[in-house]
Amino acid sequence: MENRQNKLIGIDVGGTFIKFALMDTEGAIEKDWMIPTDIAEKGKHIPKDICTSIRASVDQNELAELLGIGIGVPGPISPDGNTVVRAVNLDWEQVPLKEIIEAELAIGVRLLNDANAAALGEMWKGAAQGKADLLFVTLGTGVGGGIVLKGEVLNGCHSAGGEIGHIPVRSEENRLCGCGGRNCLETFASANGLVMSMREKLKKAGEPWHEMTSKDVFEAVAKNDPYAQAVLEDFMDILGQALAGIMNTIDVEEVIIGGGLSEAGDALLDPLKEKMDAYVFPQIRNHFSVKKALLGNKAGIYGAAYAYLTSHNNTYAGTVK
Amino acid sequence: MENRQNKLIGIDVGGTFIKFALMDTEGAIEKDWMIPTDIAEKGKHIPKDICTSIRASVDQNELAELLGIGIGVPGPISPDGNTVVRAVNLDWEQVPLKEIIEAELAIGVRLLNDANAAALGEMWKGAAQGKADLLFVTLGTGVGGGIVLKGEVLNGCHSAGGEIGHIPVRSEENRLCGCGGRNCLETFASANGLVMSMREKLKKAGEPWHEMTSKDVFEAVAKNDPYAQAVLEDFMDILGQALAGIMNTIDVEEVIIGGGLSEAGDALLDPLKEKMDAYVFPQIRNHFSVKKALLGNKAGIYGAAYAYLTSHNNTYAGTVK
Repeated sequence: MENRQNKLIGIDVGGTFIKFALMDTEGAIEKDWMIPTDIAEKGKHIPKDICTSIRASVDQNELAELLGIGIGVPGPISPDGNTVVRAVNLDWEQVPLKEIIEAELAIGVRLLNDANAAALGEMWKGAAQGKADLLFVTLGTGVGGGIVLKGEVLNGCHSAGGEIGHIPVRSEENRLCGCGGRNCLETFASANGLVMSMREKLKKAGEPWHEMTSKDVFEAVAKNDPYAQAVLEDFMDILGQALAGIMNTIDVEEVIIGGGLSEAGDALLDPLKEKMDAYVFPQIRNHFSVKKALLGNKAGIYGAAYAYLTSHNNTYAGTVK
Repeated sequence: MENRQNKLIGIDVGGTFIKFALMDTEGAIEKDWMIPTDIAEKGKHIPKDICTSIRASVDQNELAELLGIGIGVPGPISPDGNTVVRAVNLDWEQVPLKEIIEAELAIGVRLLNDANAAALGEMWKGAAQGKADLLFVTLGTGVGGGIVLKGEVLNGCHSAGGEIGHIPVRSEENRLCGCGGRNCLETFASANGLVMSMREKLKKAGEPWHEMTSKDVFEAVAKNDPYAQAVLEDFMDILGQALAGIMNTIDVEEVIIGGGLSEAGDALLDPLKEKMDAYVFPQIRNHFSVKKALLGNKAGIYGAAYAYLTSHNNTYAGTVK
């Protein structure tokens, strides 16, 4: 009899959309789609919406033969893998998502944090193919991270593995972070942090400030604006130093940079690599790569599916079908 | 027939002494001894000295039944586990120690870095018993580290996993580190760093400087010396912040502090924990322990033996006997 159990679903739950992909075990996507995220009533409809959308989009026979489902969510997962501890963007607290979906669809589920999913996605199908040890960094509104060691995500004892955006930076500034901390890496090394640094720089110089984006800062650098150049130099110094410190700790072979700021391409990656090489332990220097993420917002669905596929604990305990 | 294969040897190769222990698989030491380290002629006699000492100290029948040998060395081990890449204190470069000892004694060998060995030792028989995820920090002349995740040492892709002493610290100072870097964590947070900070502080204040040790600094703090207090506060701030950043990265449940400075006990651990809690990601705050290492200079022999015992690759390929 033909073994038809070679398909699975990867899901990326975001604050605005929930993305789905039905793919085979090689990562070939047969179908992908998305639905809006309904965060009303503390996001209580989201689990049902996920199940309804899967039933509507996947043939019933195919569903019955499905290997499993991997789901990336924007928040920490309990160390046992069963519960979304918190997801601010979904207004979730302690949601036992694995159990809910498994009970509804009778299909095994693996949950993981979305940054960790993106890290795995880039390893499986993106910029880090063939590698097993990597640091994935998103430089967007904030700074996120996912660490993969020997092919497995480092989730941590309190689901805070790879929370590199909140590494404290020694600085005389006093930037309040969303986490409640001061001078977290993301208050400097995110798109918002870059813009804030530009504003501070102009203010100190007595220059006028007009609302600008991180892209504007990069454009000003390209036009040799000395303020923007100094701001970007500081940005690189802080980020490069922090990433070098992480390298000295986990010693991976590949750093993948994603998020909106990575669109700056080599204007970001080249000076960042240079800074990291200057700060990293000699044994590592020149022996690692810094690359731009390749999968964009598809990294999460790939990684979620891959996480299910490679989980050591991916058998659904109940009766499948 | 009685299974007598329940003994193994743990070895800790230091720059001054090589320590040995014959123990059973429960870690009960039957015999321990040490020999001086002969670093003459680029340390070429060390492997033979190790074998000779084992033959002289362990009964021949017992030796033939030995499970294996774990060896901690003061330098990085190649990712394949076969070679000591470098050991400055032994004047070693690229020594294939595993092969040499296995060929000589016909017993399986596992090599690991001494800080990693100490981390495993504290987990097996010391302050971190029952834990599987921990950060071991030595605060001595320098700052060393060993990371254990899910019971396994994080050696890293370039054998630099846990090299936390070389995490760069943002500072206006310009302290040269032994690694060639500037302002590495160990230039501030080691015994030497503490003394250097005290000297700088007194110099800036125009006070006379008399040679003192890190212990003297702690004693001055106990006597409410305001300079020593300010210096210790800075020391704790830098170290606590760096360790918090590491926690946000690897998210372990236990931090074990060893090395000479740990002798200060609660005068070190209490303010350090406080600083770490102030700087660490909220999810981790108050959910981890900072403890003093328990095994002193025996951590390495325990950890080396344990590493052999738990290695997934601990079978000697040749013929035993």
